[in-house]
Amino acid sequence: MTIGIVGLGRFGAFWGSLFASSHRVIGWNRSDRPTPGGMSRVDLPGLASADAVFICSAISSMPQICEQLAGSLKPGTLVMDTCSVKVYPAKVMNEVLPASFPVIPLHPMFGPDSASAPGRRLPIVICPSPEGREPAPGVCDFWKKTFEELGMTVVEMTADEHDRTAARTQGVTHFVGRLLEGLDLPDSAMGTLGYQKIREVVQQTCNDPWQLFLDLQRYNPYSQDVRDAIEKRYRYILDSLVPLTGERPEL
Amino acid sequence: MTIGIVGLGRFGAFWGSLFASSHRVIGWNRSDRPTPGGMSRVDLPGLASADAVFICSAISSMPQICEQLAGSLKPGTLVMDTCSVKVYPAKVMNEVLPASFPVIPLHPMFGPDSASAPGRRLPIVICPSPEGREPAPGVCDFWKKTFEELGMTVVEMTADEHDRTAARTQGVTHFVGRLLEGLDLPDSAMGTLGYQKIREVVQQTCNDPWQLFLDLQRYNPYSQDVRDAIEKRYRYILDSLVPLTGERPEL
Repeated sequence: MTIGIVGLGRFGAFWGSLFASSHRVIGWNRSDRPTPGGMSRVDLPGLASADAVFICSAISSMPQICEQLAGSLKPGTLVMDTCSVKVYPAKVMNEVLPASFPVIPLHPMFGPDSASAPGRRLPIVICPSPEGREPAPGVCDFWKKTFEELGMTVVEMTADEHDRTAARTQGVTHFVGRLLEGLDLPDSAMGTLGYQKIREVVQQTCNDPWQLFLDLQRYNPYSQDVRDAIEKRYRYILDSLVPLTGERPEL
Repeated sequence: MTIGIVGLGRFGAFWGSLFASSHRVIGWNRSDRPTPGGMSRVDLPGLASADAVFICSAISSMPQICEQLAGSLKPGTLVMDTCSVKVYPAKVMNEVLPASFPVIPLHPMFGPDSASAPGRRLPIVICPSPEGREPAPGVCDFWKKTFEELGMTVVEMTADEHDRTAARTQGVTHFVGRLLEGLDLPDSAMGTLGYQKIREVVQQTCNDPWQLFLDLQRYNPYSQDVRDAIEKRYRYILDSLVPLTGERPEL
C-alpha cells in the first residue's frame, strides 16, 4: 500500500515515520520543507499514487488543503485527517471533497515528544465517518488494527464528544504551556516534583507550532467556555490576594 | 533525642513520622487536632522536653508561634522552621526568639503526596542561620546527615536566593494548580501525557491548605514579579485570539 502524508511539518514527519517500515510513504507539502527520512517527496499530482492519505496540516488550512486534494487524489482514496479538533475538519472534508472519497476523522493524542517520553500514552481518537463517507467494509477495522499494532490505544467517540473533552484536556494543557512560555522557569536543584511536571508541559506544548495553539482555541467550539472558566478562576485568585496585601509584613 | 513538632497539620504529621522510628517525637498544636501516629501529644509547656523543634505551622502564624515557643522551650533548644518562604520566617525567628536559641531555616521541597509519588524528588533547602544564631559546631552537619539518610538531597542557599527561585518554581506550580482548581478536568481515555501531568499538579497542590497558597504568594517578596509576568502573558494570549475571532468559520 502507498500512504500519502499531506503536510510535512513536525507532526507529519513523525506520523509518516510510523508507517515507513511497512508501507511505501509519499509526502507532499504546500511549501518548501525538508523531506523527512523514510519518505518519497511528491508534487501535488504525485499524490494520485496514494491509496490512503493522512492530512497532517494546520486545522485552519483544511479548506484549501481539501480543495487541492479534491483535484489530485484518485477517486476512492481514503482520506484521514489528524487535526486536534474534529467537528470542523469533518465538516470541511464532507463539504469540499468529492462524494467518491471515504473519510475517517482521527486524532492521535500524542506527538513526537510525548510518544518517546517515559510514561508515554498513545491514545488515538477515531470518530464516525460523515454520513455517506464510510469506507468499504473492513477498512476501518484494518486501520484500527494497524494503529494498535503500533502501540496506540483506539478510543472511539463522536466529533462533538471529542471536541467537548479535548477543550478540557489538551486545550487546558496547551493553555497552561503557553501561559508560562517565556517565563524564566529555571532547572533548579530545589525544583519540586510538581514543578518538574510543569516544566515538561511547557517544553512539550511550546515545541508544537503556535498555529496549533491558536487553532485549538479558535476551532474548538468548547474552548471559549473553558477560557471563561479559567478567567473567572484567575480573577478569584487575584482578588483573594488583594484585600490582605496591606497585612503583609514589611520584608 | 527528643524532637518537637510544632503544628500538626498534614505536613507536620508527615514530617514528624519521618523521625519517629529513630527518635522520641512530641507534638504540639495550638488548636485541637488528631494526634498523628508515632508521636506523643504535649501541651505548650511540654515542649520544654524537646532538644530540637521543627516549626510546621502556616507562614503567617510565625510571629505568634515564635512568641509561644519563646516562653516554653528550654534555653538553647535548636529551632528549625520548615516554611515555604525563607526570608520572612528567618527574620521573625531572629527577632522574636530569645538570643539563646540557635536557628536553622529549612524548606523541605516535598510533602506527603510528592514524597510517595513515582519519580519522587526530595530536595531540602538549608539556609544560613541568622547572625549569632548558629548552632554549636557539628549540629548543622548532624542534621544534614540525618536528612540525607532519610533520602533527601540537601541544597544550601541564602534565604533571599531561596525566595527568588521558589517564586518561579513552587510558586508557579501552586499558581497553576489553584488556577485550574474547580475546573472539570476529566480523567479521560483520550487524555494526553501532558494533560495527565497537569491533573497530577492540580491534585497535589490543591491537597495543600489554601492558606499555604495565600502565604506563598503574600510572603515571598518575588511572587508579585512572577504574577505580573503571568498577567502579561495571559493578556497576550487572549489578545492573540481576539482579532481573528471573526475569521473563525461557523461551526
